[in-house]
Amino acid sequence: MNKIKVAIIGASGYAGLELVRLLARHPGCELVALTSLEYPGRSFDQVFPALAGIVRLPFSDSGPEEIAAQAEVVFTAVPHQAAMGMIPGFLERGCKVVDLSADFRFPEANLYEKWYQAHTAPELLAETVYGLPELHREEVRKTRLVGNPGCYPTCVILGLAPLAKAGLLQPDSVIADCKSGVSGAGRQALLGITFCEVNDGFRAYKVLEHRHTPEMEQELSALAGTRVKVTFTPHLVPMSRGILGTLYAGLTESRSEEELRGLYYRFYEGHPFVRLHPPGRLPDTRDVRGANFCDLALRVDPETRRVIVLSVIDNLNKGAAGQAIQNFNLMVGFPETMGLEVVPFVP
Amino acid sequence: MNKIKVAIIGASGYAGLELVRLLARHPGCELVALTSLEYPGRSFDQVFPALAGIVRLPFSDSGPEEIAAQAEVVFTAVPHQAAMGMIPGFLERGCKVVDLSADFRFPEANLYEKWYQAHTAPELLAETVYGLPELHREEVRKTRLVGNPGCYPTCVILGLAPLAKAGLLQPDSVIADCKSGVSGAGRQALLGITFCEVNDGFRAYKVLEHRHTPEMEQELSALAGTRVKVTFTPHLVPMSRGILGTLYAGLTESRSEEELRGLYYRFYEGHPFVRLHPPGRLPDTRDVRGANFCDLALRVDPETRRVIVLSVIDNLNKGAAGQAIQNFNLMVGFPETMGLEVVPFVP
Amino acid sequence: MNKIKVAIIGASGYAGLELVRLLARHPGCELVALTSLEYPGRSFDQVFPALAGIVRLPFSDSGPEEIAAQAEVVFTAVPHQAAMGMIPGFLERGCKVVDLSADFRFPEANLYEKWYQAHTAPELLAETVYGLPELHREEVRKTRLVGNPGCYPTCVILGLAPLAKAGLLQPDSVIADCKSGVSGAGRQALLGITFCEVNDGFRAYKVLEHRHTPEMEQELSALAGTRVKVTFTPHLVPMSRGILGTLYAGLTESRSEEELRGLYYRFYEGHPFVRLHPPGRLPDTRDVRGANFCDLALRVDPETRRVIVLSVIDNLNKGAAGQAIQNFNLMVGFPETMGLEVVPFVP
Amino acid sequence: MNKIKVAIIGASGYAGLELVRLLARHPGCELVALTSLEYPGRSFDQVFPALAGIVRLPFSDSGPEEIAAQAEVVFTAVPHQAAMGMIPGFLERGCKVVDLSADFRFPEANLYEKWYQAHTAPELLAETVYGLPELHREEVRKTRLVGNPGCYPTCVILGLAPLAKAGLLQPDSVIADCKSGVSGAGRQALLGITFCEVNDGFRAYKVLEHRHTPEMEQELSALAGTRVKVTFTPHLVPMSRGILGTLYAGLTESRSEEELRGLYYRFYEGHPFVRLHPPGRLPDTRDVRGANFCDLALRVDPETRRVIVLSVIDNLNKGAAGQAIQNFNLMVGFPETMGLEVVPFVP
Repeated sequence: MNKIKVAIIGASGYAGLELVRLLARHPGCELVALTSLEYPGRSFDQVFPALAGIVRLPFSDSGPEEIAAQAEVVFTAVPHQAAMGMIPGFLERGCKVVDLSADFRFPEANLYEKWYQAHTAPELLAETVYGLPELHREEVRKTRLVGNPGCYPTCVILGLAPLAKAGLLQPDSVIADCKSGVSGAGRQALLGITFCEVNDGFRAYKVLEHRHTPEMEQELSALAGTRVKVTFTPHLVPMSRGILGTLYAGLTESRSEEELRGLYYRFYEGHPFVRLHPPGRLPDTRDVRGANFCDLALRVDPETRRVIVLSVIDNLNKGAAGQAIQNFNLMVGFPETMGLEVVPFVP
Repeated sequence: MNKIKVAIIGASGYAGLELVRLLARHPGCELVALTSLEYPGRSFDQVFPALAGIVRLPFSDSGPEEIAAQAEVVFTAVPHQAAMGMIPGFLERGCKVVDLSADFRFPEANLYEKWYQAHTAPELLAETVYGLPELHREEVRKTRLVGNPGCYPTCVILGLAPLAKAGLLQPDSVIADCKSGVSGAGRQALLGITFCEVNDGFRAYKVLEHRHTPEMEQELSALAGTRVKVTFTPHLVPMSRGILGTLYAGLTESRSEEELRGLYYRFYEGHPFVRLHPPGRLPDTRDVRGANFCDLALRVDPETRRVIVLSVIDNLNKGAAGQAIQNFNLMVGFPETMGLEVVPFVP
Repeated sequence: MNKIKVAIIGASGYAGLELVRLLARHPGCELVALTSLEYPGRSFDQVFPALAGIVRLPFSDSGPEEIAAQAEVVFTAVPHQAAMGMIPGFLERGCKVVDLSADFRFPEANLYEKWYQAHTAPELLAETVYGLPELHREEVRKTRLVGNPGCYPTCVILGLAPLAKAGLLQPDSVIADCKSGVSGAGRQALLGITFCEVNDGFRAYKVLEHRHTPEMEQELSALAGTRVKVTFTPHLVPMSRGILGTLYAGLTESRSEEELRGLYYRFYEGHPFVRLHPPGRLPDTRDVRGANFCDLALRVDPETRRVIVLSVIDNLNKGAAGQAIQNFNLMVGFPETMGLEVVPFVP
Repeated sequence: MNKIKVAIIGASGYAGLELVRLLARHPGCELVALTSLEYPGRSFDQVFPALAGIVRLPFSDSGPEEIAAQAEVVFTAVPHQAAMGMIPGFLERGCKVVDLSADFRFPEANLYEKWYQAHTAPELLAETVYGLPELHREEVRKTRLVGNPGCYPTCVILGLAPLAKAGLLQPDSVIADCKSGVSGAGRQALLGITFCEVNDGFRAYKVLEHRHTPEMEQELSALAGTRVKVTFTPHLVPMSRGILGTLYAGLTESRSEEELRGLYYRFYEGHPFVRLHPPGRLPDTRDVRGANFCDLALRVDPETRRVIVLSVIDNLNKGAAGQAIQNFNLMVGFPETMGLEVVPFVP
């Protein structure tokens, strides 16, 4: 098989590192370029000794032109704003792009601009696909530019999509109480994420202000056919990876747990990365660590007609790099699971 | 000053240990007896070397008669059911009792019996006081038997009491999404709380089934003057101590954040252990570690008229031993803060 | 390719779980039986939901006869004593066996019996091979019974073997100060390894008494051609996996760091799982997490003529299951790295 | 009692924070000034909400003149080099000083200058006292300037002092394999100490290069009356606080464990902060968390005539702030334990 040549822009952050980890063993692709603003000229395994002898490519600081001359597909794992500055250059030169930033997650510039800043490539938004394959698999197959979802939105949208689609979500009732590991804050030198400031503690942050909110609302509203509002509260857990979303929603009509479980089961049939827990079992973020799964469980409170969905993902995997590779596989015609058949890392 | 003679029944669990830690430095009391079913005859500091040279009392397995002959006040830190078996014996012999189990938290046997089991001392329930001093300080002063609140209920009730009292809580809207450190599971050999089964993970448990639910509903309903229902979801955090409650409630009338902050401020004026965060700051469980504080912050979502309260306590301290000593102080006429002026343990 | 049929005896402990994790993706083998005394009849992924949809085999409690009828190779991951009770039965029926217990790590019964208990199958000891492929690759290829090394001995022996072989070790000078993650204590309900008894602490244990000492001494002595004594101090680190050995030894002759690095380089040439760090870099247990590597670095103190070797492994992988599979590969004629080309799990 | 007026220079680092935590409840002193280069003008409890309502002093950036006008005793908890720049100014104005930096730990400038940089106040070195009260209590009582020991040296020197004093240490045999919590790296934004770079890992650092080595050698040599060399290997443990030193030394004469225990017992008689474990028990860093204890245990390997001492302290307490207050108490004539009668924080 001819291997696809792949470049990773921003390979020294945690999402970039996870892309390298996974793509190093992906049977259908060849890593040809890794860029980093911090480590140009140093070899990848010098910066990340864990990969000593596995990935020896040097970090480069090559520009789009040079990258596009080598690579067929580009993963951009750089901060928002930086991404939209370089992606048009990759597309013009014929590359396909999976963008892990927030820059191409919204079909219209105004919502993006409300939460982020001015968009410098709005002409691309119409063709962009929101890369949640469980919802948009066919569009992903056909596009050249995927906006890879945020970690929290992946967790929340997959947790509520079947209800939204079935018209069962009370539009104003949705609460997403989410808890994330520290790698979600990125690989950077910040006092607030040093070990001693996180260890043996738990806190909420950015209550009612987190930028992932509009992504959740956009996708759930599209599914529901009506505007769904999400009250989203992120929290920081003293662990490296993982997100657990505890999702609360009022039901428009009474349904038993069993009926809802059937609904979910049918919704995700044929989607290999969503696993629905049987009655009596609840997911743990450790069950999906290092893998591309989203594990779900649900409970119904008959008294209040409220459903509680538990949704877990690995924020760096299904919440970033794993999902990006899932999108990549679809974009280049590979089996959706290629390179992602990883057993979760326990204990 | 004459020191009060104190016994701790069940001093080798975590709540018992925390009682010993705090009472060892309480200027108004003297520890006269520590019991333990597991370690009778061994000295306290042999089992807990951290207290070497500080507490040398031997663990005993003395019965109520012997204990009552030595002690004026008894803290019972044993599992529910065991507590109600021995407490009548202490009371008869003239001791005052602070019970840390669930056995005397309900004014009527039927609610207790629905969630736990048959009550063997129902005749005492009428005189029992629910030991949340911020709500029942005057009754605590006068009683001989306090039912010390559960850890989760302390966190949730203190977080919502001002709203309930003011009639602002929509009775069916309350969601208490709570996250606890592992010491909440007690000091016992269980596979599910071994390090490797907890570390670097996060999970919910006992969704819609946790026995602390009726305590929350009882107190909030009493304050509100109407039946308040609580959807309560406990989670396990890979940390030793601390509970953070993220509490969601619909408001019956629109209120600004500032108005609510004023309401809370007035409600807790004169209560030294509740600290309200200023705007822009959110509590961390680490801020109250080892201390008897409950730290609160609140946010209002103007669009949905929903309030989010963040409430943190140390589950072993304000959620157990610290609160028990606060009750003890009131019961014997000491200043409420005596022995509890501990600076939280950071970092 | 014809897949080798494999059984795992004791598949519900951590070493067993790691075997399943790795073998589930090993291209040359097929899992045919998983046994467990605790969970007979339950499916593997019911007990370990992380593997939901990946390994559905039920746990059995089948005896040797039944197992041998299905499997060509048996991994025994049961406690010592239990292993030697069943292994003769597997061998008689034609199975090859990799034993992860301590029962077949010593060529003579007396040393085993001094540290453990009476040996019930001493007649097998002569043909047993100590399964450290970096030292005994050719013997492993030919044997039907491998005694898979202990985790600490793997770390220590690989760290000092080149020095021992070169006659550079002062026989009485060796100190192995080792630090292990908690999974080394196994998957069991013990108070001392519950989260709250381990978190945010560090301690030594079994100083001068740990049973892994004779293994280290046996192999290093054999390499050195003289009796090497090891002062071994194990410690418990609040992490799930990993061992770091800080190994101190006096040199019989003065050598520079560079000379010793050259010696190590040549010794491990052709051994794909040992990675020698370049000058200026020190290994972290995280660099080998989930993988079969042993990473080494060394420093020489010119003043005392003392060498310090840092050696890290994943105790469940190179220290147990990974090494067992490496032995398996050699025993059945597969490439040594088959199924073990796993990228370490970072961050 | 007249309270001593105290200033803390550098009160926003971890040692400074621990000083504030402890001094806020010290019955004999009054905090009059807290300085910080980072937070001037902000109140202490705004930066550290854990102390809300307890310490409200604003951080200042006052110079020595202003500080000396308010304070009788100054604790300098700033980096080395900065300390020696300001301390002469405090002394001239009549303050006593406890310096937590390395600047005044050496009686002669040349050793300091070999490991650090040029000394700018060498004229003060002769009168400086190395503030390990277990060795220099009487000198501390009389001095106006204490060089407070480093954390690692405190752990190592206390662990070996009785042997050194008794002439039992083989001068070239000492190995100090030490393991520290992350707070030892200070409160600063560094990538290498972010949660995800430390969690679930273990590593050595600065092998043979750590600046605490000469402190250890200086004190042990002085006790032994001959030059003692220390091979010192520091490691980083994924925990917030605590140091455990595993100390190896050859004995010049054969001694039994019991004899050595007697030696230690006599050496530390009358020193309230050193606790010697009975046979069969080993110390855990958790046993001294938040307290000023140094807990010791020892084992002798009869075969090699080598002793192993386990020594634990809390690096921020006995290793920094607690010891500084112990010195302060001695310098101003308070009981040595005043304000330090803290029960260790378990669990």
